Amino acid sequence: MDTQNRRFRLIASCPDHVGILAKVASFIAGQGGNITEANQFEDQRSQSFFMRYVFNLSDKTVSIDAFKVDFQSVADELEMDWRIADANYRPRVVMLVSKFDHCLARLLHRWKVGDLKIDVPCVISNHETLRELVEWYRIPYYHVPVPKDKEAKQAAFESTAELIEANAPDAIVLARYMQIFPAWLCERYRHRVINIHHSFLPSFVGAKPYHQADERGVKLIGATCHYVTEDLDAGPIIEQDVVRVQHSDSIEDMMRLGKDVENTVLSRGLRYHLEDRVLVHGNRTIVFN
Amino acid sequence: MDTQNRRFRLIASCPDHVGILAKVASFIAGQGGNITEANQFEDQRSQSFFMRYVFNLSDKTVSIDAFKVDFQSVADELEMDWRIADANYRPRVVMLVSKFDHCLARLLHRWKVGDLKIDVPCVISNHETLRELVEWYRIPYYHVPVPKDKEAKQAAFESTAELIEANAPDAIVLARYMQIFPAWLCERYRHRVINIHHSFLPSFVGAKPYHQADERGVKLIGATCHYVTEDLDAGPIIEQDVVRVQHSDSIEDMMRLGKDVENTVLSRGLRYHLEDRVLVHGNRTIVFN
Amino acid sequence: MDTQNRRFRLIASCPDHVGILAKVASFIAGQGGNITEANQFEDQRSQSFFMRYVFNLSDKTVSIDAFKVDFQSVADELEMDWRIADANYRPRVVMLVSKFDHCLARLLHRWKVGDLKIDVPCVISNHETLRELVEWYRIPYYHVPVPKDKEAKQAAFESTAELIEANAPDAIVLARYMQIFPAWLCERYRHRVINIHHSFLPSFVGAKPYHQADERGVKLIGATCHYVTEDLDAGPIIEQDVVRVQHSDSIEDMMRLGKDVENTVLSRGLRYHLEDRVLVHGNRTIVFN
Amino acid sequence: MDTQNRRFRLIASCPDHVGILAKVASFIAGQGGNITEANQFEDQRSQSFFMRYVFNLSDKTVSIDAFKVDFQSVADELEMDWRIADANYRPRVVMLVSKFDHCLARLLHRWKVGDLKIDVPCVISNHETLRELVEWYRIPYYHVPVPKDKEAKQAAFESTAELIEANAPDAIVLARYMQIFPAWLCERYRHRVINIHHSFLPSFVGAKPYHQADERGVKLIGATCHYVTEDLDAGPIIEQDVVRVQHSDSIEDMMRLGKDVENTVLSRGLRYHLEDRVLVHGNRTIVFN
Repeated sequence: MDTQNRRFRLIASCPDHVGILAKVASFIAGQGGNITEANQFEDQRSQSFFMRYVFNLSDKTVSIDAFKVDFQSVADELEMDWRIADANYRPRVVMLVSKFDHCLARLLHRWKVGDLKIDVPCVISNHETLRELVEWYRIPYYHVPVPKDKEAKQAAFESTAELIEANAPDAIVLARYMQIFPAWLCERYRHRVINIHHSFLPSFVGAKPYHQADERGVKLIGATCHYVTEDLDAGPIIEQDVVRVQHSDSIEDMMRLGKDVENTVLSRGLRYHLEDRVLVHGNRTIVFN
Repeated sequence: MDTQNRRFRLIASCPDHVGILAKVASFIAGQGGNITEANQFEDQRSQSFFMRYVFNLSDKTVSIDAFKVDFQSVADELEMDWRIADANYRPRVVMLVSKFDHCLARLLHRWKVGDLKIDVPCVISNHETLRELVEWYRIPYYHVPVPKDKEAKQAAFESTAELIEANAPDAIVLARYMQIFPAWLCERYRHRVINIHHSFLPSFVGAKPYHQADERGVKLIGATCHYVTEDLDAGPIIEQDVVRVQHSDSIEDMMRLGKDVENTVLSRGLRYHLEDRVLVHGNRTIVFN
Repeated sequence: MDTQNRRFRLIASCPDHVGILAKVASFIAGQGGNITEANQFEDQRSQSFFMRYVFNLSDKTVSIDAFKVDFQSVADELEMDWRIADANYRPRVVMLVSKFDHCLARLLHRWKVGDLKIDVPCVISNHETLRELVEWYRIPYYHVPVPKDKEAKQAAFESTAELIEANAPDAIVLARYMQIFPAWLCERYRHRVINIHHSFLPSFVGAKPYHQADERGVKLIGATCHYVTEDLDAGPIIEQDVVRVQHSDSIEDMMRLGKDVENTVLSRGLRYHLEDRVLVHGNRTIVFN
Repeated sequence: MDTQNRRFRLIASCPDHVGILAKVASFIAGQGGNITEANQFEDQRSQSFFMRYVFNLSDKTVSIDAFKVDFQSVADELEMDWRIADANYRPRVVMLVSKFDHCLARLLHRWKVGDLKIDVPCVISNHETLRELVEWYRIPYYHVPVPKDKEAKQAAFESTAELIEANAPDAIVLARYMQIFPAWLCERYRHRVINIHHSFLPSFVGAKPYHQADERGVKLIGATCHYVTEDLDAGPIIEQDVVRVQHSDSIEDMMRLGKDVENTVLSRGLRYHLEDRVLVHGNRTIVFN
């Protein structure tokens, strides 16, 4: 067993103290761990401390389970929220989509060529449109129509929730899924549902942001990757970017230009999430990139 | 007299027709004019046509006054709003400022080294703070305090308006002037009052946009150069740009990073305005850059 | 027949004169044409004039063939190089590729969803690797291995040339084709062979540009879309862009980050070419975008 | 004495080991130090480790001199190159300039308003041109002409070196100083002489990079902030950025557009240097930003 196979990430936050780094780093060293990446951030406003350490354990040392048990006493002392993730674990990502395929197509392509080291147990859609694309990748495609009627809609989201739960995802990506995700589902998968919104939030919340951008006459359009919460398009922002538009660009041009930005922003945001680089603090994110 | 000395700009808009370009270009050629730059835009939504032509008149041809008289019949036929500007005219720009000097300092520097071909008849401020800077450039500095009291404030803006009028500006730049410009003054200098707002509008309208940006946790901050109208921070946008921020950037860092963007955006926007590259259409701008 | 069906582009260059616009615009108007887009550029160094006009002909007017015959006399008078393209013509694009699929996959996806209005008669590769991808799109895939031996290589390029010729392309895209295109083929398809080079040219010409970028320690990596000429990576540049890298980015990270830029730059460059927005002038391009 | 007044930076590199972080962080904690920022980088190619820690010492703890003496044994054990800088020390920056003032003017402005926390003991120029600007800031201005004759040039650089030495700078900024800095001076102030080159290096080394950029027809121009070494424009790169240009931009336009990028890149690069964020490794930099 080589050390590459025993690589872990510690993600933690705690009130600010003197000596946090020393205690954590010493503990890891004491267990025979070798820290290869380390990020930390001291938020002076909230007197909080955030960290992400990547470390290898050699094969002569303790099991990760024993490591965790022993670490708890360090964590208790520091009043720390923490978790340890296996860096070699392949996260499971369920994707939801409606009719626009550009985000989904790019994610599936990146998955297939190995740029995105995930499993995709299924794709769920409220339309049949993208079945052929998804099935070419030999990924199960579930069509769950979402009617407008309130009860039928609730039933549809319960079916969706069952499908999600049956596939035990580490992250759920709304890759241009044009339905409002219900609050109870947001809550169940808190900080694990990732949306791509096709505007530079907080501008142009809600439907048809390119139309809103055109109406306001902005000179740049953007995209925002964020965690979904019960407040529409108001969850913690993970990543954003923009692209220049001109007066001669129609809404169709904006849609075309926006696709590239949406793809780039979603790809980056999802990667940050899956590599445990994103820590949520209130409605802000700390992104160790 | 060489032709460089007889360079003009035609800026026009009209309902869309067949043959606009042919009529205008033929008229200019018929007067011995040589078109050196030409931009046009057909807005399909409003069936409107916008154009900006730069042309030289040789010294053997008509005076520009005769040219204008004759052009009126072409314009009438095309139902055209138009004006002709002398490209060698040095526009007069009055600047208003409060305490932050980064935008003003950069504009004055660019003016002094000849990058900005304008005259600056005066700088008006509601504070004394920047007198030394301005007077080093040998530019008159007028201190007009703006009290909070409603009547006193009205009087202050009347004094400001008199100063502006006495200096006959082609443009008025609010280079971080932290007072709301009254609606009657906006109206008097319609589409000639240029503001730099330190956010990517329409996000973070009003006061303390960097604080708002920090609160929302955005990953890019921006600046917007726009014409001032009676609706606060809602006038036609001329230019925008953004810069990346990280979770570790404090509001002070944002202010520092934002300064460069504010400067760049204001410099570009003002140049577009002064070179007659900006046509306003409803609440949008057409920028021929 | 509606006018949308009779949309054309005039692309022309000529020595600089007084009255070019007037003559051309008047001719088009005289034929009942309505100009919807117009770009021109006067290159003061070479005293040359470049233009691109898009115009509609109504169904009551002349055929485009008669139009062309009559236009020749205007062109002769102005010593003009010109061509007229049917804006509704679907250009044929042959793609060449080796093993990396990110550029090809994105182009084929954009073609399939209708963002790229082209026909793809075939894909040619010196490897078998991407057959499955291409054939999923129901596009013929030709495997033409390119041996190292000089004569065999010459034979391979003759086969490649025959395949290209049989498919009568308007453009040939080297979508990460890792062979040097022979000078005689560049010449045969002059200014129609488009390459994507994975560096910000003229930096890092030739093989392994990301390795070169890493060696030099640059802080941005880029991609360049250019016409292929007999001088390796030195043909006229159509489009470029960059992305930021950090000291912690490995060559593999650069490759991943670079993919998005390569895709964006190639997509833009190809679109400019296909919409006749690119005029070559010496080793520079004029891009009317 | 509050802890803000006792803030230090540890900058270090060493061969990669298990437990570096633990040893260093434990030492600092043991001395009563509180780490507020920490960056590290493990270079897998060279098996080297780089770190930058910012820490406060409370007033009840050891002197920094005692701290340093004790730290030496930790450093010896880790075979570490290290230094400790006082974060409250105001670095002394000597600036050299020729005739272009945009970089100098911006640096002096940023210094005056307190954005740049440095002392500027003098400005040295091979021309008289910028004396008025510099003296307005009440900074001594030394005019040291650099003749073309070899011996006279050597003498000029000896005078320059004496002036530099007499002012004991922590950094020397070549703010568009258009003379080649002699190798012996580069060596004397190794990794402390910072140049701004007006191209995206390694493209367009040497003189007149905007002319070279125009000749090659690139679509973006850039600027590079780098340490000066005996190899012209080939020293370790600290920061780079680019701005888009069009076919219609003349060389004068490029110069104007380039000024903003030069300023931004130099400002960022200098700040990174002064905050001890730049570690040089071979001909590359690690920038902890």
